[in-house]
Amino acid sequence: MTGEEELFLDVLRDEAVSRIYQLGKVSDANNYLERTFLSAASKRAGDLILSWMEDAGLKTWVDGMGNIHGRVESQNATAEALLVGSHLDTVIDAGMYDGALGIICAISALKALQVSQKLDKLCRPVEVIAFSDEEGVRFQTTFLGSAAISGMLSPSVLKIVDKSGVTVEDALQRNSFRATEESLDKIKYDPTSVYGYVEVHIEQGPVLESLDYPLGVVKGIAGQTRLMVTVEGSQGHAGTVPMFMRRDPMVAASELIVFLESLCKHPQKFLTFDDQCVGSPIESFSGLVCTVGEISCWPTDYLVKLKVYILSQNNICGVVKFTVDIRAVDDLTKETVIQKFSDRVGTICQNRMVKCTIDRKHNAAAAHSDKKLSLRLRQAVLSAVSRIPGGIQGDVPVLMSGAGHDAMAMSHLTKMGMIFVRCRGGVSHSPDEHVSEDDVWAAGLALLHFLNKLVVC
Amino acid sequence: MTGEEELFLDVLRDEAVSRIYQLGKVSDANNYLERTFLSAASKRAGDLILSWMEDAGLKTWVDGMGNIHGRVESQNATAEALLVGSHLDTVIDAGMYDGALGIICAISALKALQVSQKLDKLCRPVEVIAFSDEEGVRFQTTFLGSAAISGMLSPSVLKIVDKSGVTVEDALQRNSFRATEESLDKIKYDPTSVYGYVEVHIEQGPVLESLDYPLGVVKGIAGQTRLMVTVEGSQGHAGTVPMFMRRDPMVAASELIVFLESLCKHPQKFLTFDDQCVGSPIESFSGLVCTVGEISCWPTDYLVKLKVYILSQNNICGVVKFTVDIRAVDDLTKETVIQKFSDRVGTICQNRMVKCTIDRKHNAAAAHSDKKLSLRLRQAVLSAVSRIPGGIQGDVPVLMSGAGHDAMAMSHLTKMGMIFVRCRGGVSHSPDEHVSEDDVWAAGLALLHFLNKLVVC
Repeated sequence: MTGEEELFLDVLRDEAVSRIYQLGKVSDANNYLERTFLSAASKRAGDLILSWMEDAGLKTWVDGMGNIHGRVESQNATAEALLVGSHLDTVIDAGMYDGALGIICAISALKALQVSQKLDKLCRPVEVIAFSDEEGVRFQTTFLGSAAISGMLSPSVLKIVDKSGVTVEDALQRNSFRATEESLDKIKYDPTSVYGYVEVHIEQGPVLESLDYPLGVVKGIAGQTRLMVTVEGSQGHAGTVPMFMRRDPMVAASELIVFLESLCKHPQKFLTFDDQCVGSPIESFSGLVCTVGEISCWPTDYLVKLKVYILSQNNICGVVKFTVDIRAVDDLTKETVIQKFSDRVGTICQNRMVKCTIDRKHNAAAAHSDKKLSLRLRQAVLSAVSRIPGGIQGDVPVLMSGAGHDAMAMSHLTKMGMIFVRCRGGVSHSPDEHVSEDDVWAAGLALLHFLNKLVVC
Repeated sequence: MTGEEELFLDVLRDEAVSRIYQLGKVSDANNYLERTFLSAASKRAGDLILSWMEDAGLKTWVDGMGNIHGRVESQNATAEALLVGSHLDTVIDAGMYDGALGIICAISALKALQVSQKLDKLCRPVEVIAFSDEEGVRFQTTFLGSAAISGMLSPSVLKIVDKSGVTVEDALQRNSFRATEESLDKIKYDPTSVYGYVEVHIEQGPVLESLDYPLGVVKGIAGQTRLMVTVEGSQGHAGTVPMFMRRDPMVAASELIVFLESLCKHPQKFLTFDDQCVGSPIESFSGLVCTVGEISCWPTDYLVKLKVYILSQNNICGVVKFTVDIRAVDDLTKETVIQKFSDRVGTICQNRMVKCTIDRKHNAAAAHSDKKLSLRLRQAVLSAVSRIPGGIQGDVPVLMSGAGHDAMAMSHLTKMGMIFVRCRGGVSHSPDEHVSEDDVWAAGLALLHFLNKLVVC
């Protein structure tokens, strides 16, 4: 690959960016972007994606979960297929890049292969998949699309209900899909037919921008644990209980939240290698993040039972509840941090004479990228970045993903690898989400280089 | 006063307790106690109180704000009247003693004077008032009753609306009261006609119980300031923003709440006499209390404007808001503490690169008890307590009131004094609110001794 024409400026940058804007206008809402599982806008988005796939010379179909597929076969009829994809659904008031970028980059890279007449010279099939649900907005359950393909979807999801009382089953049938255990089973891919899964996605964080580098390779997707911490104190009148006689759950919760931040910001201060942390060197803490995203003050239990809610700034709270979201690339690290947090919760609550309980609401193990696939992606990124004007220097950043992605579900089917694309200010899930045109180009070019090495004979 | 019969066990204890239970059953709700301004239950409670006043030999009437009055005139037609009272309304899911105790003790003490044939030998008139609104539950504004009598009520309150859209004006008219600026003006008392105001009330806090003493004298009602603190940070995905790149308003708010507790628990550590604190010796901090009773996590402003609320445990909050309720007997102390808190908010928020604003939502100056009246109350308490079996020892506790009371409104009309009565566990505004039968007796006896000294010729 030498020469200007092989940078595919028109396909990988201009057309890809134009398609991102076009897809960004396909919304169920008037004033902002919202595209949820099997909604009217999702149907229109699917039709648009199908037309782009066909334009790139792919054979297309829609599977029984609303996933959009575009595939090109190889000269070798028995070769395992490379899957490339991302999701077509969005959050509410979303940005244009989350999901869409990965689908459009994949189609554009295949179109570039078609333009350079390499699409009939593939040594393994390539299939682009636009997954129907990753964000989980409508049914509050993520990965409906990719989990169906990877065979991780339990038939019980058919009964989950959205806000308007519609089940997944109803939603599928209203879109003329069959919705039975057998039909779900048919969507599932045979692992022996698949070589691996690759996904391009915006970073949704500020790391690449801070490193001044357009692309990064993802070493893994963090495991996640969600806790609900309940602090029960002694409800009282804000004016009549002296400070030294209080058992105020709000201050206790605040102390716990401040400690949690210290623990996750400087874990080395709190954890030692003796501390059940064998195999967890400091390096593994690098992706550790802890967040309290919800907090609420409640009256004591008997008032809740009476449905008499005295929520007042005049009152010392009876009960404070807050959520904790802990993520780490290394599951053992995550468990060690949770243990340390729990220990300190015990001490602080004992000192403050409040009762604290910690409930584990959700637990997901980390998913690790395939090393060889990641090495290939790294080489492709290096090659793409070096050819794009702008004097980008330095080694390719290797990041962990704190957010879940379809690659997490797909890792149960096959080996996976991901490329992250720099986004402005680390902002995502927001109309302010932005990826520069040149970074879209870099991502497409990296994918093209990756395909050139891996699937072009 | 000597001899068993003058302890009035039957009137001051048995009948008073029985009346407290009787009034505690007069409720607008089926399963719990609720009696709000001008409700059907308030009307029934008023009728009951009128009958008890008449039984004690008082001349009764209801004023244009629904306050219940019972008065006995004196031999001296021009003497200033002593007012004694408390409120007949309650919070939702209330206890039986808050308000009711003070009304019933006052009627019982006058009944004891009647029984001992002293009611026609008074040297100044005595008037018991059961105020129609102190808690402010229905119209979210306190002291409708006592503020009308003390002349502090603005005619604009007539337009305030309750949850079902009924104005104060409507509510008054539906109860056959006139509701005009002139009619409000007629309720107001002439300050020259009044000697002072005395109120018995449950403590609503744990101090007397901890001192093992049934009654206390109130030195003043704390001033109160309500703040709304807004912490604006950088909203983000809980998984994708590394700890060291966060501007998390939740942790910043938590740090502020922990600091606020330290400041109010140990003000001497933070404030010096040079610190604008002239005239605020350490002693004046004793009644200082600070409470965060409400906290909430919000998305960034533009999402709120779009009415798209992303409240999720997956998110780093964009904005955290919390309330601060600060009370102190000394207004200068309160201001000094607010200043110190504001300074620290500035420092903490600057260090965390979040934007903090403090809005003052409410401000009420402290009301101080009259020293001579308090001395008389103290002597009456000592005398009552020494006569009641139980071996109570030690000096009469002098407390500040952190909660507001009708006495606060009445202090704008005349000098005031208050007696607090011990309550179990410091619990109030709850069905668990409890005052022992002997403590009800002690309170009635103290009031009787006070009247004997002050108004019996």
